[in-house]
Amino acid sequence: MEQNRDFSSHGNASLIIGVDVGGTKIAAGLVDRDGQVSGRVKIPTDTSHPAKTLQAIADAISGVMQEAVVSAAQIKAIGLGIPGIVDPVRGTCLFSANLGWENVAVQDWLEQATGLPCAIENDVSAGALGESLYGAGQGQRQMVYLSLGTGIAARAIINGQLYNGAHGMAGEIGHLMCDPTGPRCRCGAIGCLEALAAGPALAEAAQQKIQDGSASPLLLKQLQHPEEQMRAEHVFAAAALGDSVAHQIIQRAARYLAYGLSFLVFTYDPQCIVIGGGLATEQSPLMTAIHQETARWIAQSPVARGRIGADIIRPARLQQDAGIVGAGALILAQERTQ
Amino acid sequence: MEQNRDFSSHGNASLIIGVDVGGTKIAAGLVDRDGQVSGRVKIPTDTSHPAKTLQAIADAISGVMQEAVVSAAQIKAIGLGIPGIVDPVRGTCLFSANLGWENVAVQDWLEQATGLPCAIENDVSAGALGESLYGAGQGQRQMVYLSLGTGIAARAIINGQLYNGAHGMAGEIGHLMCDPTGPRCRCGAIGCLEALAAGPALAEAAQQKIQDGSASPLLLKQLQHPEEQMRAEHVFAAAALGDSVAHQIIQRAARYLAYGLSFLVFTYDPQCIVIGGGLATEQSPLMTAIHQETARWIAQSPVARGRIGADIIRPARLQQDAGIVGAGALILAQERTQ
Repeated sequence: MEQNRDFSSHGNASLIIGVDVGGTKIAAGLVDRDGQVSGRVKIPTDTSHPAKTLQAIADAISGVMQEAVVSAAQIKAIGLGIPGIVDPVRGTCLFSANLGWENVAVQDWLEQATGLPCAIENDVSAGALGESLYGAGQGQRQMVYLSLGTGIAARAIINGQLYNGAHGMAGEIGHLMCDPTGPRCRCGAIGCLEALAAGPALAEAAQQKIQDGSASPLLLKQLQHPEEQMRAEHVFAAAALGDSVAHQIIQRAARYLAYGLSFLVFTYDPQCIVIGGGLATEQSPLMTAIHQETARWIAQSPVARGRIGADIIRPARLQQDAGIVGAGALILAQERTQ
Repeated sequence: MEQNRDFSSHGNASLIIGVDVGGTKIAAGLVDRDGQVSGRVKIPTDTSHPAKTLQAIADAISGVMQEAVVSAAQIKAIGLGIPGIVDPVRGTCLFSANLGWENVAVQDWLEQATGLPCAIENDVSAGALGESLYGAGQGQRQMVYLSLGTGIAARAIINGQLYNGAHGMAGEIGHLMCDPTGPRCRCGAIGCLEALAAGPALAEAAQQKIQDGSASPLLLKQLQHPEEQMRAEHVFAAAALGDSVAHQIIQRAARYLAYGLSFLVFTYDPQCIVIGGGLATEQSPLMTAIHQETARWIAQSPVARGRIGADIIRPARLQQDAGIVGAGALILAQERTQ
């Protein structure tokens, strides 16, 4: 699936809007050619019906124009990052669990609603482009972006261009079976990397320890009240306070993730792997553990050591604006290849 | 490592020589623009000293010119496939276990010796290009070639071009750790895919069964005399005769290989995976087992099934000439991008 649309036909309009469509909120803004964001808008995602979600996206777009005091005539194109399987050529979202979408013609609908050219991509693909153009992967022709959050997915930049593969599955290492005796993944398969090392897996492991009675008071204290749902952030907070059970949970996830990183090294062989997403903040104890475990497998592999070091891993640089910049980057990347 | 040399400067010469440098023999021939080979030459590889190996390669090249009755003035360029880590831009072989080479300036030496432009590549990379241009991967923009023999390695064709990665490690899935309790690989690491499923691993598993006393007479009968070294071919022959121990050994290797194929699918996401190399002949019971095991994991993965089938795997089409055609394809692929 390659995309090479020519957005230059849209008069002298030069501004770009990036829209980060999430399962709970839609964030949008103007993205300039230095990857800077202005005119930010954030509205809740109405997932009650695809038409309502699309309307909310259109609302976010007009919100940005109001906020930044620009007219539609000044907008060159709109880029959208969608959490799901996307056909960027036809502009449709084939499936999105987060949005409850199946075969939604996003691009056609939005182009009609806004009168502006739109481009859509998977949100991890957009993130990869954003980090490649403006973030930690700047200037690297071969780069992989790994998103760690509720799910796990990677996307590669190959020879300077986003690579989605023949069926839009390139980089979906979250669904590689890593443990045949592991838990069931939300995809339905057993022992996927995502089921072992994504946010919900960390939370579930902690919940299990609480039920077993093997959780420490430090871990329990992270919950404000007993009915509160355990989250990966609670595990991180307990680990930061020196809790050994939380530390073990993180270390185990990091071992699986380092294993996943070895897949990326022995297939894409990139100059760097940029790790982003909700679990990969710079202060995250998971990032520290991933560094340690990666250094370990590299040291154990005569083929890898000597060629790469654990510094192949870098934290993502685009922080709160990552989704918007990534979506805008869809348009900006097209400009660069024209 | 990208290579885009212009071989068109070499007058009106149009013929191409492909050289397949193996650990035991050097095979060479003229390769035409339909991937057909003529003027075949095969000589033993002298690995006693790099200078001797290079001289043997030069001898094979002049042998082809004699055999095909052509002069150096008619040769446009020479392509060489080398079993090792190659820097195709600088034209050096960084390391080859099979040839006993370390930092050998192959291209410079041969260009001086023959007076002709030369290009070198890793042999699996050359095989990938050959199958992509003239074999089972013809017409596929996204394709992976997996070589199964003494070693295991893959190379991807991405957007129609050979992809070696940033450190020449792209596709080296033979050195992915697949079993932490597995045997030591010849690379030095533990439990590599290659140590579990390449030719020597199959032979060793059979040898082990013989030592255990659990091998069947059918498997034992494959050896001409008791001192004969067990080889993967013996295991295949016993399995073809219905031997259940041989069958189990093959099935186990196929499970690991199908696992390796899942790495390739969830990273490169190609239109097809072409399997070649000594163990992957069309009649090989290993290929049948790989098909079965691949169908099984695809059926178990909701993300993969519906998008791909086990027919994503194809046997290589270039047979005895594969190495020569692949080496010639290095030059022919350059022509196509010019």
